[in-house]
Amino acid sequence: MTRAVDDRSDGELDPAIAERVRQTFDEMPALDLVGAELASIGVGRCEVAVPYRRDLTQQQGFLHAGVVSMIADTAGGLAARTMMPPEKTVLAVEFKINLMSPAIGDRFHAVARVLKPGRTLTICEIDVYAETGGDQGRDGEGRRHCARMQQTCIAIDRR
Amino acid sequence: MTRAVDDRSDGELDPAIAERVRQTFDEMPALDLVGAELASIGVGRCEVAVPYRRDLTQQQGFLHAGVVSMIADTAGGLAARTMMPPEKTVLAVEFKINLMSPAIGDRFHAVARVLKPGRTLTICEIDVYAETGGDQGRDGEGRRHCARMQQTCIAIDRR
Amino acid sequence: MTRAVDDRSDGELDPAIAERVRQTFDEMPALDLVGAELASIGVGRCEVAVPYRRDLTQQQGFLHAGVVSMIADTAGGLAARTMMPPEKTVLAVEFKINLMSPAIGDRFHAVARVLKPGRTLTICEIDVYAETGGDQGRDGEGRRHCARMQQTCIAIDRR
Amino acid sequence: MTRAVDDRSDGELDPAIAERVRQTFDEMPALDLVGAELASIGVGRCEVAVPYRRDLTQQQGFLHAGVVSMIADTAGGLAARTMMPPEKTVLAVEFKINLMSPAIGDRFHAVARVLKPGRTLTICEIDVYAETGGDQGRDGEGRRHCARMQQTCIAIDRR
Repeated sequence: MTRAVDDRSDGELDPAIAERVRQTFDEMPALDLVGAELASIGVGRCEVAVPYRRDLTQQQGFLHAGVVSMIADTAGGLAARTMMPPEKTVLAVEFKINLMSPAIGDRFHAVARVLKPGRTLTICEIDVYAETGGDQGRDGEGRRHCARMQQTCIAIDRR
Repeated sequence: MTRAVDDRSDGELDPAIAERVRQTFDEMPALDLVGAELASIGVGRCEVAVPYRRDLTQQQGFLHAGVVSMIADTAGGLAARTMMPPEKTVLAVEFKINLMSPAIGDRFHAVARVLKPGRTLTICEIDVYAETGGDQGRDGEGRRHCARMQQTCIAIDRR
Repeated sequence: MTRAVDDRSDGELDPAIAERVRQTFDEMPALDLVGAELASIGVGRCEVAVPYRRDLTQQQGFLHAGVVSMIADTAGGLAARTMMPPEKTVLAVEFKINLMSPAIGDRFHAVARVLKPGRTLTICEIDVYAETGGDQGRDGEGRRHCARMQQTCIAIDRR
Repeated sequence: MTRAVDDRSDGELDPAIAERVRQTFDEMPALDLVGAELASIGVGRCEVAVPYRRDLTQQQGFLHAGVVSMIADTAGGLAARTMMPPEKTVLAVEFKINLMSPAIGDRFHAVARVLKPGRTLTICEIDVYAETGGDQGRDGEGRRHCARMQQTCIAIDRR
């Protein structure tokens, strides 16, 4: 599992929380199975990426909605986690996702943002982009908005 | 990939459509990756199962919500597919899932049912059960309702 | 506001909770505005009805989705309320609704059922039926399933 | 029904479509019942507002979630409508809404934006803000983000 954490852009994230988020990511075997990477974390935000692999697709060669959901759900949960006290952990209680265009590309990027933090519930939005070609910028033509998730997370005590 | 198709309980399913559903299932590499099985199909219904594996879990050992979503989304799409004309194929356009209790168990079962078939859109509900122990019945104590999905599918022309 | 509470079918509902649910219903001015009625309550279930009125419709003469949502959301919240301790109150934190067929009829009926009660969160499903004609039975031809909602409620302390 | 259409900010909206959107708004009696106003339209966007009234509330004095949904659903549908050909009309097929903070205020504003236009389906996001006090700006302290909706609309032929 490659990991390229870039949280320099948001200096306010408590290093202890950043470390906890990274650790949580590493403790999810399912992410390793699909080859997901923690691309970036910050206060109330998180990005998770997965490179295309043939064994992640459905019958038309699109990334399976379950894999799209996996990276989006994970990014949302970890974004929520960054705004919770250290002694808490996070669980997604529900999400809704619109699969807006075919998930075809070389790499998929889930970008999560907290809409509303809360002591009990935290609401996130997560966009998933399909990227094609080499080194494209954020708004390059090689980036297509393929899914949008709206997610509710709950803070629970760590056991 | 084990497959145990049981569609005897609903004799009305057109064998050509049943074959197409099985073929679609087999054409999804992501299902093979997680070890999912097509457990049952019928008119407007489909069941997909996945045995527990450590590499499908998140940080607490629960089945990752992405895998729960994968089997639920697949079961819903295929249930919708059984009510479409042979020349069509199906895509999920959106779904919403409530993760109601921890997905802990030996085996997980997604049970899909069409709520409303349609020429363009078909609406499904999918329940996911976590099963523990050996050979339990449908309502046995070893079966816990862990997730509910509500899904919208679209019929599109096959290419 | 007409009210026809029928909770005889489920003798287990604590009368104090039944009274609290009725009271909560009566304390919602918006329900009075649309002419909604509390049709039935029981343990983990609630039915809210609204007769057709021209001023509740959208441009095609269907009941406006906002009114469909209002009766469904209310029925779900009150169904959740029946399974909470007396000192709590309930708020819907989110819901998702599929508008499956045109909401055309003489009367609309939202039927809520708790899928998963919980100390903090309770999950409900709510079906909305459009009824036409006079005195039809539950499965009569005059009853069409026009919407399905999936809802998450939270228990909070009463102030 | 007051109406303050401000579509000057987006000169590209075809006047015929703008007129059709305004007309559709005026043809919805339910919006008149709650006192909703069409606040603004543009290409792929629409704003609908409703001033506080006691008869729109639930038991705690918050705007009822059904009314919040009504203005959000309407704004989303009309935003989708602006990107469809003139001979089409629009129906919401489903939506999901998170009620993120109490809908308390003097006025409520639903701001819709098309995320993904399409020939058949159009996906929208809609934010609802509760506004208190007099003449506050868009980011003023008197504006609180109280709900987020994610909605799927379908284009159908006008009859």
